[in-house]
Amino acid sequence: MPLFKNLMVVGPGLIGSSILRRARGDGQLAERLIVMDRDIAVLKRVQELGLADHITLDPADAAQADCVILSVPVRAIEPVARSLAPYLQPGTILTDVASVRGELGAIIPSFLPDGVEYVPSHPMAGTEFSGPDAGFAELFEGRWALLIPSLDAPEWACTKIQHFWESCGARTKVLTAEDHDRICAMVSHLPHLLAFTICDTADNLSAEMRSAVLDYAASGFRDFTRIAASDPIMWRDIFSANRDVLLETLERFIQDTQSMADAIRRGDDEAITAKINRGRRIRRTLIHNKQA
Amino acid sequence: MPLFKNLMVVGPGLIGSSILRRARGDGQLAERLIVMDRDIAVLKRVQELGLADHITLDPADAAQADCVILSVPVRAIEPVARSLAPYLQPGTILTDVASVRGELGAIIPSFLPDGVEYVPSHPMAGTEFSGPDAGFAELFEGRWALLIPSLDAPEWACTKIQHFWESCGARTKVLTAEDHDRICAMVSHLPHLLAFTICDTADNLSAEMRSAVLDYAASGFRDFTRIAASDPIMWRDIFSANRDVLLETLERFIQDTQSMADAIRRGDDEAITAKINRGRRIRRTLIHNKQA
Ligand SMILES: NC(=O)c1ccc[n+]([C@@H]2O[C@H](COP(=O)([O-])OP(=O)(O)OC[C@H]3O[C@@H](n4cnc5c(N)ncnc54)[C@H](OP(=O)(O)O)[C@@H]3O)[C@@H](O)[C@H]2O)c1
Ligand SMILES: NC(=O)c1ccc[n+]([C@@H]2O[C@H](COP(=O)([O-])OP(=O)(O)OC[C@H]3O[C@@H](n4cnc5c(N)ncnc54)[C@H](OP(=O)(O)O)[C@@H]3O)[C@@H](O)[C@H]2O)c1
Repeated sequence: MPLFKNLMVVGPGLIGSSILRRARGDGQLAERLIVMDRDIAVLKRVQELGLADHITLDPADAAQADCVILSVPVRAIEPVARSLAPYLQPGTILTDVASVRGELGAIIPSFLPDGVEYVPSHPMAGTEFSGPDAGFAELFEGRWALLIPSLDAPEWACTKIQHFWESCGARTKVLTAEDHDRICAMVSHLPHLLAFTICDTADNLSAEMRSAVLDYAASGFRDFTRIAASDPIMWRDIFSANRDVLLETLERFIQDTQSMADAIRRGDDEAITAKINRGRRIRRTLIHNKQA
Repeated sequence: MPLFKNLMVVGPGLIGSSILRRARGDGQLAERLIVMDRDIAVLKRVQELGLADHITLDPADAAQADCVILSVPVRAIEPVARSLAPYLQPGTILTDVASVRGELGAIIPSFLPDGVEYVPSHPMAGTEFSGPDAGFAELFEGRWALLIPSLDAPEWACTKIQHFWESCGARTKVLTAEDHDRICAMVSHLPHLLAFTICDTADNLSAEMRSAVLDYAASGFRDFTRIAASDPIMWRDIFSANRDVLLETLERFIQDTQSMADAIRRGDDEAITAKINRGRRIRRTLIHNKQA
């Protein structure tokens, strides 16, 4: 028997359409797929791709679902949840895939009807592409799905969301919202911020430098910016939703950079190699752990 | 007829042994291969690998060579060149593969015997591994080799070094030392500095964060640090030899980072997305140019 009778995906972009493809593929996730978006053209495309049993612009259709997944940008999660809330039926699980938790865990339950359970999650998987054509069924295979349930979330609902992600091929882990946002600032948000910025720096220098960067990118720049092609709205939302933690992590990074710069400035060979060696250690552990 | 009669490689590490493998492979580069190092164990390994016709610890053997390639760390280039200089014969080309030019172009010719030509170069190719076992014949295939000849270098010598790199599979370009160091600061040295530093930042945070970074590295961190496993002595030398330009490039990058941080702090959505979009533009051009 599938995990859900009526699974509703709101926002069939990269993540949403990957979930839909997975659900279509193995039939283990849901009996029926309802897809909601704010744009009829996107919904038509989803239908063409054969990813929905029912497409809708109408939040009232949330009444049919026993699980609703919000896969819209971080800042749209709360307003979209508010628009659906009046229609959600007791026993329904509401989840989302937002990359930043922030206050969502406190705010969203406050306006949900009794008996509707909020068990948010964050699949640590993605590409730099967006929209319903960008998704693929294997996106979550072997990746982490982080669960960030509130303390009073009932166990049955947490277990269902855990099974959901496992059926998508992911490994799951439960984290608090604070730990989640701190970890993601370090492993994902800061690297993206730096990757966008170094491209910006290269672009700012001069036409000649810009063209040199394009010619000689293979020397490091390329690897460094692989992640800098991602969607601007998604990242604007992430950067601003995780503002405090991200700025604090960035501050530490800039301090470490300044300390490397100082060592270079004063010609302190030992300090330079000590820093390089510390960096290499983590990198080598990643390779050893087959994470790289 | 091979390009050189007696090619001498000093420092058969990643780059030096890749040149030797290439020369062994096609016979186009040299009739005879002389390999010098300061460590007899390294020379024995080179002999075992079949990469030399003659191994030596003795700088006097440079008298036999019509081309000498220094492939030692940046800071060792000058002292090694000084030790060989008395033995170099008129008509010999001295070249190196150092990643930073700095003052080498001014200093080295000042102590070379008359008729010895210095035509330095920098192959923009490498991996994070070192030593004679790390090299491979295809390392330079399709990559750039930058030539940085002084203004009074004779054309025949420049042409020979150009053909040398083309025979190694590389494309060549002539640059001034200043342009070379500025471009490499941007496309290679700054990305490496940031990659080493972000690993260091992750390592400094806490044991828990370090283990989270290892678990969740796939979310961006991994791509960002792919280049952070490289050799500490090589990078110490590069950072300090290109100190002024690198620190200036880093300063600009930190300013751009601060300006992104300010936009995030004051919630200026337009500024954030404008910066992300500028970054993406370069990244997309790279993809378009098949450089990524
Ligand atoms: N991409 C990743 O690497 C990744 C990884 C993990 C988690 N996430 C999270 O997953 C969520 C979706 O990301 P994605 O990469 O799938 O994005 P995407 O491909 O751009 O899809 C976003 C979807 O949300 C809809 N949408 C956008 N703004 C909206 C609004 N204001 N109100 C209602 N709907 C809106 C879009 O509809 P239209 O097409 O009609 O605009 C689209 O269907 C985000 O919260 C993101 O942080 C992303
Ligand atoms: N790796 C890259 O990505 C890359 C790319 C382009 C250019 N380069 C440049 O190529 C050069 C060599 O780099 P590599 O990656 O081939 O390094 P490597 O594999 O570490 O080899 C360096 C060689 O230089 C010798 N050496 C080290 N210190 C020396 C000293 N003080 N005096 C004499 N010999 C010394 C080493 O001998 P022992 O083994 O006996 O110590 C070894 O044979 C450097 O100038 C580097 O900047 C590197």
